[in-house]
Amino acid sequence: MGPDPAGGPVSRQKSWNADPEPLLRVGPGFRLDTVDPDGTPGFAGRKIDGLEALASGASRLAALQERLWAAATAGDQRRVLLVLQAMDTAGKGGIVSHVVGAVDPNGVHYAGFTAPTAEEREHDFLWRVERQLPDAGQLGVFDRSHYEDVLIQRVRGLAEPTEIERRYGAIVDFEDRLVEQGTTVVKVMLHISKDEQRERLGDRLDRPDKHWKFNPADIDERLRWDEYQEAYQVAFDRTSTEQAPWYVVPANRKWYARLAVQQLLLRALEDMHLSWPAADFDVAEQRQRLAAS
Amino acid sequence: MGPDPAGGPVSRQKSWNADPEPLLRVGPGFRLDTVDPDGTPGFAGRKIDGLEALASGASRLAALQERLWAAATAGDQRRVLLVLQAMDTAGKGGIVSHVVGAVDPNGVHYAGFTAPTAEEREHDFLWRVERQLPDAGQLGVFDRSHYEDVLIQRVRGLAEPTEIERRYGAIVDFEDRLVEQGTTVVKVMLHISKDEQRERLGDRLDRPDKHWKFNPADIDERLRWDEYQEAYQVAFDRTSTEQAPWYVVPANRKWYARLAVQQLLLRALEDMHLSWPAADFDVAEQRQRLAAS
Repeated sequence: MGPDPAGGPVSRQKSWNADPEPLLRVGPGFRLDTVDPDGTPGFAGRKIDGLEALASGASRLAALQERLWAAATAGDQRRVLLVLQAMDTAGKGGIVSHVVGAVDPNGVHYAGFTAPTAEEREHDFLWRVERQLPDAGQLGVFDRSHYEDVLIQRVRGLAEPTEIERRYGAIVDFEDRLVEQGTTVVKVMLHISKDEQRERLGDRLDRPDKHWKFNPADIDERLRWDEYQEAYQVAFDRTSTEQAPWYVVPANRKWYARLAVQQLLLRALEDMHLSWPAADFDVAEQRQRLAAS
Repeated sequence: MGPDPAGGPVSRQKSWNADPEPLLRVGPGFRLDTVDPDGTPGFAGRKIDGLEALASGASRLAALQERLWAAATAGDQRRVLLVLQAMDTAGKGGIVSHVVGAVDPNGVHYAGFTAPTAEEREHDFLWRVERQLPDAGQLGVFDRSHYEDVLIQRVRGLAEPTEIERRYGAIVDFEDRLVEQGTTVVKVMLHISKDEQRERLGDRLDRPDKHWKFNPADIDERLRWDEYQEAYQVAFDRTSTEQAPWYVVPANRKWYARLAVQQLLLRALEDMHLSWPAADFDVAEQRQRLAAS
C-alpha cells in the first residue's frame, strides 16, 4: 500500500497558519459587513500555494469520502451535507466542479434549487429539500437551498413576513433533526464584493461561450444588493447554530474560496474518525473458496 | 480564451491507430468467447501513453458535457446514458470515478442498481430504471441496469423463462424510445478473464481496506462464470441494435478499459456537434444596465 491520502489533516500543511474553521464560522455578534471579500483567513500562502494545496486536498477528500461510503455499507448512518448560498457569480459552480468534483460520482448527491415549481409550491418549503437529502455515506450538495425561502423570498416579498419569520425556526428545527440523525451540515455563504460581481457579470457578457450563464434577472437581483446582504445577515443571526453553523467564505479570490470549502469538508470528515469496516465474513474460508473456484 | 479543450477528436491523437468504436461494437455474428480480455483494440501505445491520453480526454469530456448542459438550458433535449455491466471486479467503479468523475457533478446522474426492493418487485422491471434516467444535458450512468433482469435473473432462474424472453423485446422497445427522445445510449460490458477475476478477488481478501468491497456471494457468482458468459452472449444477440449497440471492452488492463469508455463517450458527444447557445437577450442593453448598477 502506498502512502494513505486519508492520513493527516491538510491544515497542518505549510501555507495554512491557522485552521480556517473558527475564523470563518458565524458566531454571536457576527457582522457580514465587516468581512473582507478579498481576504484569505488562515492561509498565508499565495495563489500558487493555494492551488497546490487544493490538488493535494482533492485526493484526501476522495479518500475520506470512500471511507464514509465503506462505513455506510456496514450500517453507519453518517453523511455530510454542504449547503451553498451566494450572490450570482460568487462561484458556487466552481465549488461543485473543483471541490466536490474530486469525490467519486457514486458518493455525491447534487441538488440544484431554482424557483419552485407549481407542485413544489403546493407543499411546505422544506418538502422539496427533504427529497434531495444525501444517503448514508454520501456527500450531499445543495446548490442554493431552503435558504432561498428566507432570502429571495424576503427581498422580493414572495411570502408574507409572518411566514418568513416562521421559516427561520422551521429551518433550525429541520437542521437539528438532520444533525441528530447523523448528518454533518456545512453551510457556506460565498462572499464577493459588489465590484467583483460587476467584473464577473461583465465577463459573461463579453464571452459568447458564457452567454448561456447570463440572465437579465441577475442584474435585477444586483440592484437589490444591500437588501440581500441584510437578508443574509438576518439568516445568519437566526440560523447559525452550534450544531449547524454558517461559514462566510471570502470569495473574490476563487482559489481561496475553493480551498476553504475543501478544508471545511475535510475537517467534517476528519472529525468522524472513519476507519475501514471489519470483514463480516471469514477471510481464510473465502480465500479457500476462491482458490478452489 | 485559451485553446478550446472541446476542439478536435481525441482519436486523432498519437497512440490511437484506429477509432475503437467499430472495433468494440457488437455487430452481427459477434462471439464474446473470441474477445481477448487482455487486448487494447485500436490503441497502439503503452500504459503510460494510455494514462496520458486519459488525462487529456478528461478535460475534453468535461468541456463537451458543459456544452451539452448549456444546450439544454436553451431547450435542447439531448442527453447521454452510459450503461455499465460486468462480472464482479471488472472495473465498473473505476470507470465511474476515473472517467465519469471528470465531468462536473452537476452534469452527472449516477444510479447504481442492486437487488430490487420489495416495492421495485411490485412493478415491471423497467420501472425503477425509468425513474433514474438522466435529465436533458446530463450524462447518466447506470452501474448495473435493467440488464441484470436478463443476466442474474436468467442464470439464477429468478424469473420464468417466458418472462425473460419477453424482457429482451421490452428492453429493445424501451431503448428505442430513449433514442427517439434524444438519448444517446452507450452500453458497455467490461470483459475480464476468469483468471484476472481470481487475482482481483484475492486482492480484496488480502487487503483490510478492501474487505468492505468483498461479498461471499461474489464467489457464488464466479462459480457460474460460464453461465454468465452465455447469458451475456444471448443479451448481445437480442439487444445490440443499430440505435443502441453494445460495446464489449477488454478490461484486464484497467487503463485501457477506462480510455476506451472515455473514447466512446467523447465520440457520442462529438457526434452531437454541440455549439454554445446564442444569447436570448440584447447583450449591449445588458452591458448598459450593468454599467449603471
